[in-house]
Amino acid sequence: MLTLYCFGPGANSLKPLLTLYEKGLEFTRRQLNPAAFEHHEDWFKRINPNGQVPVLDHDGRIITESTVICEYLEDAFPDTPRLRPDDPYVRAQMRIWTKWVDEYFCWCVSTIGWERMVSRMARQYTDEEFEAYVRRIPLHEQQVKWRRARAGFPQEMLEEEMRKIAYSVRKLEKRLAESPWLAGHEYTLADICNFAIANGMEKGFAELVNERDTPHLIDWVRRINERPAAKKMFAETPREKLERPGQPAPPAGTAQTAHAEHAAPAQPAARSA
Amino acid sequence: MLTLYCFGPGANSLKPLLTLYEKGLEFTRRQLNPAAFEHHEDWFKRINPNGQVPVLDHDGRIITESTVICEYLEDAFPDTPRLRPDDPYVRAQMRIWTKWVDEYFCWCVSTIGWERMVSRMARQYTDEEFEAYVRRIPLHEQQVKWRRARAGFPQEMLEEEMRKIAYSVRKLEKRLAESPWLAGHEYTLADICNFAIANGMEKGFAELVNERDTPHLIDWVRRINERPAAKKMFAETPREKLERPGQPAPPAGTAQTAHAEHAAPAQPAARSA
Repeated sequence: MLTLYCFGPGANSLKPLLTLYEKGLEFTRRQLNPAAFEHHEDWFKRINPNGQVPVLDHDGRIITESTVICEYLEDAFPDTPRLRPDDPYVRAQMRIWTKWVDEYFCWCVSTIGWERMVSRMARQYTDEEFEAYVRRIPLHEQQVKWRRARAGFPQEMLEEEMRKIAYSVRKLEKRLAESPWLAGHEYTLADICNFAIANGMEKGFAELVNERDTPHLIDWVRRINERPAAKKMFAETPREKLERPGQPAPPAGTAQTAHAEHAAPAQPAARSA
Repeated sequence: MLTLYCFGPGANSLKPLLTLYEKGLEFTRRQLNPAAFEHHEDWFKRINPNGQVPVLDHDGRIITESTVICEYLEDAFPDTPRLRPDDPYVRAQMRIWTKWVDEYFCWCVSTIGWERMVSRMARQYTDEEFEAYVRRIPLHEQQVKWRRARAGFPQEMLEEEMRKIAYSVRKLEKRLAESPWLAGHEYTLADICNFAIANGMEKGFAELVNERDTPHLIDWVRRINERPAAKKMFAETPREKLERPGQPAPPAGTAQTAHAEHAAPAQPAARSA
């Protein structure tokens, strides 16, 4: 039996979610609420001591780290549709891209996403409530990130992250201008893992991602969104609300559109949550 | 035919070097001189536009990124000794460790290594000479790192990196107290990739890595150093000299011992060079 502990269909949670849908694997989704800091509760830290989603439970064996989970699904279910090339060279190209998103692209987009969305949520708590939640976070770096989100990230950091995002967008556009998919001619985990961060950037970073400047990137995002597995995943997986539980919902008329509901900048990067 | 472009047997260059030796694969070593910024020369940037080692050339196909190269060698040469577990769960544990060293452990050790060793080398050039070299570096982040190395890293950054190193050492010790190898009962790429950074820390970070505080980590480093492949690699692969080419060698009596010659803190992390 497969159980996936995750947030909504964005950022790092999207990676194993879309991989499971693409492979047609039956699984139970156990969706946590980041606004209630549910991933830092003791019951969940017994599953992943780092207090991070996504986590895969496969017959009682626990696998952490979104990209590792995706490769695990390839290793454990070789008879389902393949998202990893057979050719060792093309497979290496795939891994260069999954590594790059984990080490570079996801972090800059995540900081801006946190500044825009998580900061507001974090400010809905009193100082005392917030500190009580932060003390439960196992990883030092994540405690720092939550405190920064509440206080507001330093301007210098936001500018550096925006520079990195612009660089990332140019890098993706350049690659997708020469090749239909990131690793080459096949749709692979490289596409899924980068789509997890890039999806929705046309809305959240319209000055960088648009038909004029990045036509190939936009076409690639569209092609992935149109895949039956992606459509099914978005239809079946609710996006989390970044509101303090029990708080009144935003006034009518401010609800986001269906597209915006899985916009990348509105999602905290799950690994960093 | 296999050609490996690399620095000496430390940090990221050690990963594919030791993997090649463990697998008994014939290869040509093309060792670059970091003190001459050889990896930023045009001929090398035509091989890897990022200007980073290690790089593997396999019959004209170029594979970059040290950890990706190691997995590639497993994929491309399945009939050589295996360094990747067959069991998908254990393989995932291996990947959690190779990912962690790339995203966390290597960076903190690298900064301290640069502060101690690369800084001195960078100061052997005039301002003008140095800036001419730095301008050839393709990656912005690496330009910043070289300039910081020359100016001296900010104290706050050094303290934060030392905190991360202490955390990393405790994490490795805890794991190695419960398991002979990082991924479990088998020696895998997880051990090779973490050894690449941890080897020599008993000398460079003696206050953290010592018989009393980290007996299991020390035993693990010793066990890897005693493997025939590691002995052969260290015997055959000269360590680079971090001296400006043409500069006088250090005075007699200051030469490092054989052990110190592959000490981690004395090595720049290749990916970051």
